[in-house]
Amino acid sequence: MILELADIRIQPGRQAEFDAAILHGIQSVIAHATGFLGYKVHKGIDTPERYLLTIHWATLADHTVGFRQSEAYGQWRAIVAPFFAQPPVVEHFDLLHGTDAA
Amino acid sequence: MILELADIRIQPGRQAEFDAAILHGIQSVIAHATGFLGYKVHKGIDTPERYLLTIHWATLADHTVGFRQSEAYGQWRAIVAPFFAQPPVVEHFDLLHGTDAA
Repeated sequence: MILELADIRIQPGRQAEFDAAILHGIQSVIAHATGFLGYKVHKGIDTPERYLLTIHWATLADHTVGFRQSEAYGQWRAIVAPFFAQPPVVEHFDLLHGTDAA
Repeated sequence: MILELADIRIQPGRQAEFDAAILHGIQSVIAHATGFLGYKVHKGIDTPERYLLTIHWATLADHTVGFRQSEAYGQWRAIVAPFFAQPPVVEHFDLLHGTDAA
């Protein structure tokens, strides 16, 4: 299992629209992808235009190949990309340790 | 409950030392702070010098005032800061939604 972190900056003042769009995009597209295990969306307190989308995938290739090279990736981008102020910064991580079930 | 994300870049080649140091710092210092609820440490796959430290605090002030203005903050910095390649980028977030217990 690996973690994808997408660090997202949206256009100012569009938070309410984006809150609905990202939930719709996850539930209608990403949640159906092979290897998708779960997600969280966090909203910035210090920077209100910043969102963190974290997704657990079974394998790195489930995201980088299976999802990104599928038609579903275009569907996802069509839903969320109109709100982006700049391209999201996306990287992948392994869990080192933690106690956090929250 | 709020999420702190510390986006950390360490000096190349010091991963094994830092893995031990950050665990020691969390367990010996941060875990005893008022309002600390849990943490995770993730290690970069795409960028091996990048670490994500996420901490759940009961309130924003538990981190920004209670912890950062305490003597414990200096103890924490003394353990981890020698490995930093640059100052970590730290911001705070609210959970919007998610299904992820991982």
